[in-house]
Amino acid sequence: MSLDRLMEKIEQTQNPTVAGLDPKLDYVPEFIRKKNFERYGETLKGAAKAILEFNKGLIDALYDIVPAVKPQAAYYEMYGTAGVKTLYKTQEYAKSKGMYVITDGKRNDIGTTMEAYAAAHLGKVKVGLSEYEPFLGDALTVNGYLGSDGIKPLLQVCSDNDKGIFVLVKTSNPSSGELQDKLVDGVPIYELMGKMCEEWGKNLSGVYGYSGVGAVVGATYPEQIKRLREILPHTFFLIPGYGAQGATAKDIAAAFDKNGLGGIVNSSRGIMCAYQKQKCGEHEFAEAARREAIRMRDEIMGFVGKIELNK
Amino acid sequence: MSLDRLMEKIEQTQNPTVAGLDPKLDYVPEFIRKKNFERYGETLKGAAKAILEFNKGLIDALYDIVPAVKPQAAYYEMYGTAGVKTLYKTQEYAKSKGMYVITDGKRNDIGTTMEAYAAAHLGKVKVGLSEYEPFLGDALTVNGYLGSDGIKPLLQVCSDNDKGIFVLVKTSNPSSGELQDKLVDGVPIYELMGKMCEEWGKNLSGVYGYSGVGAVVGATYPEQIKRLREILPHTFFLIPGYGAQGATAKDIAAAFDKNGLGGIVNSSRGIMCAYQKQKCGEHEFAEAARREAIRMRDEIMGFVGKIELNK
Repeated sequence: MSLDRLMEKIEQTQNPTVAGLDPKLDYVPEFIRKKNFERYGETLKGAAKAILEFNKGLIDALYDIVPAVKPQAAYYEMYGTAGVKTLYKTQEYAKSKGMYVITDGKRNDIGTTMEAYAAAHLGKVKVGLSEYEPFLGDALTVNGYLGSDGIKPLLQVCSDNDKGIFVLVKTSNPSSGELQDKLVDGVPIYELMGKMCEEWGKNLSGVYGYSGVGAVVGATYPEQIKRLREILPHTFFLIPGYGAQGATAKDIAAAFDKNGLGGIVNSSRGIMCAYQKQKCGEHEFAEAARREAIRMRDEIMGFVGKIELNK
Repeated sequence: MSLDRLMEKIEQTQNPTVAGLDPKLDYVPEFIRKKNFERYGETLKGAAKAILEFNKGLIDALYDIVPAVKPQAAYYEMYGTAGVKTLYKTQEYAKSKGMYVITDGKRNDIGTTMEAYAAAHLGKVKVGLSEYEPFLGDALTVNGYLGSDGIKPLLQVCSDNDKGIFVLVKTSNPSSGELQDKLVDGVPIYELMGKMCEEWGKNLSGVYGYSGVGAVVGATYPEQIKRLREILPHTFFLIPGYGAQGATAKDIAAAFDKNGLGGIVNSSRGIMCAYQKQKCGEHEFAEAARREAIRMRDEIMGFVGKIELNK
């Protein structure tokens, strides 16, 4: 149930990391862009097709060693309806290779509107007598600013479809404290949000100790990771901010429990643009991504130790 | 600049209301559903095409008396890529009729990712030497939980493209207080968020006294509307919760200044499903929507008085 499938993939690969697929067109190797522009024009469709080819190359290079991908919706919406089609096709391809798909959409709304988002990204939609899956995420990131009315509509859909969510708790950006660190009766807002995750998660308990309601906790705030791990024993963390945003494996070690579970660390640019950093030539983008994914896995596993699933 | 074009449309129509286009398939008259299912199948595409036809009928019935539409992204994403295409086509049609388009997406993220959302929904995207508009909103709703890193990337795009944003401040749902009403040094969080809107708006000042950074303030909280109008003199309000959620024109009167400016009131179900409430037969859905839009306008204008633009 819930996020258990993700934990099983993490255990299988002995790798608590996720490859963020945030494909700015600049990240796509020139030869892929050129080929798709020639075929589809220098259009939104051409860009979207180039990104899909790039993503598929990355997935081919990663699927046996990395448990999950996290496509960021913004970079697909940026290319209009063609881009959104590439989001779907990317999810489909990653799933066909056995990867767990976390859709990073940070969606939020209330009541029937949140039900619509839940159906769109985690559930099924009925049209006449038929049922369809509009998008193919296994989990979705969401924003809890609207309170329980914004989260509860997701819980039934997650329960019915074996899916999970990650609620923004303490984000990795420099200004995240402007609101999130403010104190309410001595308690920072991110802790309040974290405690709501524990509460919501009671409706979606999992077999490995963590519920289907995870939390986004930035790698750039190691003190807060430590504190949140202590007070949120059933909440699995999605941890952005490693690499490009400056955090190291040591900063996130506190997210993990004695079984090596408790979080999954994202790297987007680090993996997608590895060929630029490694200066190995753009035709080697996939191999470079794999090398970086292995380097990252080994670095993080150095702190995490062996990952075991105990029921 | 900014939200000025919206205020000009409001003055022109003497109507501070917006028609929410949240097209659940159940809302679409049977004859439209049937026609499109016969043509495109009982598929996501069939549903999306039916919704587009419904939306166009509503826009035809409203464009000369209602200044703006607010399509809610969730109800389009729910029908997959075909649904997202209907969002685009709805925006395009509304704009062709001269309406102002507020995309209700409640998007949020940071840095380059927020830049991607800004380009997607309010800006332009370069592919090779060409520029495209991925989606066609004039304004976008956004969520400020991530702080300034999540809002600042929008401001330049708004400035360059004459667009605006509405930040969630005090939402209309029953549980909005779980987080938003919590006190920080005696000040509720929604006030802090409102004050951030005033701050961000300094970079996007308008000619009619309100900036390009508006606030979402629920009609269901009249006390808070009154207080927020007092402390946020340059922030224009987008006001959901009228009608179906129980608020009346009297509840929202305090949002408006002496010139009748200051806010725009949304009705979604009330207008879209007017034909069901009026029991007039589904073929009259557009006329019913128009009657309800006029009734709502007259009710609200009874409290607002004449709307004047003073530079």
